[in-house]
Amino acid sequence: MVEQNCPTRTIICVIEYDGTRYHGFQLQAQEPTIQSELEQAIEKLTGRQTRIIGASRTDSGVHAREQVIGFRTRSALLNKNFVDGLNHYLPQDIAIKAARQIDSDFGLRKEAKNRIYRYRVLNTPQRSALEVNRAYQVGVPLDVDAMHKASQELIGTADFASFTQSDNYSESTVRTVYEAKVSKEVNMVLFDIKADSFLKQQVRRTVGTLLRVGTGELTIEAFRDIINAKQNGLAGPTAPPYGLYLMKVNYDIELYGEEK
Amino acid sequence: MVEQNCPTRTIICVIEYDGTRYHGFQLQAQEPTIQSELEQAIEKLTGRQTRIIGASRTDSGVHAREQVIGFRTRSALLNKNFVDGLNHYLPQDIAIKAARQIDSDFGLRKEAKNRIYRYRVLNTPQRSALEVNRAYQVGVPLDVDAMHKASQELIGTADFASFTQSDNYSESTVRTVYEAKVSKEVNMVLFDIKADSFLKQQVRRTVGTLLRVGTGELTIEAFRDIINAKQNGLAGPTAPPYGLYLMKVNYDIELYGEEK
Repeated sequence: MVEQNCPTRTIICVIEYDGTRYHGFQLQAQEPTIQSELEQAIEKLTGRQTRIIGASRTDSGVHAREQVIGFRTRSALLNKNFVDGLNHYLPQDIAIKAARQIDSDFGLRKEAKNRIYRYRVLNTPQRSALEVNRAYQVGVPLDVDAMHKASQELIGTADFASFTQSDNYSESTVRTVYEAKVSKEVNMVLFDIKADSFLKQQVRRTVGTLLRVGTGELTIEAFRDIINAKQNGLAGPTAPPYGLYLMKVNYDIELYGEEK
Repeated sequence: MVEQNCPTRTIICVIEYDGTRYHGFQLQAQEPTIQSELEQAIEKLTGRQTRIIGASRTDSGVHAREQVIGFRTRSALLNKNFVDGLNHYLPQDIAIKAARQIDSDFGLRKEAKNRIYRYRVLNTPQRSALEVNRAYQVGVPLDVDAMHKASQELIGTADFASFTQSDNYSESTVRTVYEAKVSKEVNMVLFDIKADSFLKQQVRRTVGTLLRVGTGELTIEAFRDIINAKQNGLAGPTAPPYGLYLMKVNYDIELYGEEK
């Protein structure tokens, strides 16, 4: 591919992925990650090595319905052609849903107003064939109402230290949870949570703790105490990654602006 | 495993599978099929070669939420232990949901009152990463109302010769369709159809033809004409297998009777 020397533009894309085969979003030395696959596809398409950033760093095995990535390019490609071009080079478990140009000073992580995650628990006595790597199967009956009531304790601005395991004590563990909901569709229990941003493993530890409310092991008061303790790593266990989906990253701008 | 010589019993199981890796339900000489995997698991569990039958023969790549299989065994295992035992030996993309004993003269295919299939079409401009092998992505906008109206023409007892490609002219192509529905959930168009039984590729040819109504290529009248023509193979194209799910096989007996 010929080198292209157009003025530098900043492109953001909405992407979807099945995280099963990947060692998380972020670049690693040896293992395939979402970032490494995207950077390879961009290089194939534009002929230039390109660094991308992601709005949310998902862990190994975690999926995304609408992750947002950004990169700078001097490629002459039309914005909309990034969608088809990257979809051509990407493996089938990573897909580009939209692409648009934004101002070069746009901060992909800082300007995200909030992130929405969903966790799927299949509440059936037997394992499922069609939900392998897509939902966490729990055999014991779960009290969805109790879990939903407990989840309301998460709403607001609080120190969520109990829901992460961090060695970095200089980093703030205060976050704002805007919405939390536990509901059930047939046999699938859905945990939906929206916050400004999330601590490492916060959603999976939240779900793991709420599941203990669902089995009757923890009362709602005990759940509240875990939040209030603000004690590093107190909550848990950490629910497995394959039930977790990054559903959406919201901005003040329209992500599908130039595609719809 | 020790040979067991208890009186012969007939066991039926409700099974779920992701058909992606398999060359259909039915046994083949070389290729892995749902039947071959089940027969191997039963042999590992009981120590005896066992032949199974299925209520519906799904094609290569087709999935099942609730297929029903039956087999005879002289194993001493309790009925309910077939569920955990077979789930232990089966690959993760095939799962046993229930097992029970039935009368030895029970005809697994003949006594099925009806079968329900669902076909999933993802109606989005771009391909999806999470629906790979799980839904057929169609990029052009589809008129769901028109497809639903056309689908109502299928209801009733009729000669569905147009919806199959058979060389066997001695076999009847008359079937009774009890229910047909086309609906949409967000971007997913769902085709649901219930009939006494289905001809080979009948559902996929029905969906392929309804999609031509959805794009405006066929009128509802033209769709009706295709049914009325009763002309072998006239309908189509055949929608790809990976969007198709066998949802349920209904009997007068309770399939989950001894498990729930």
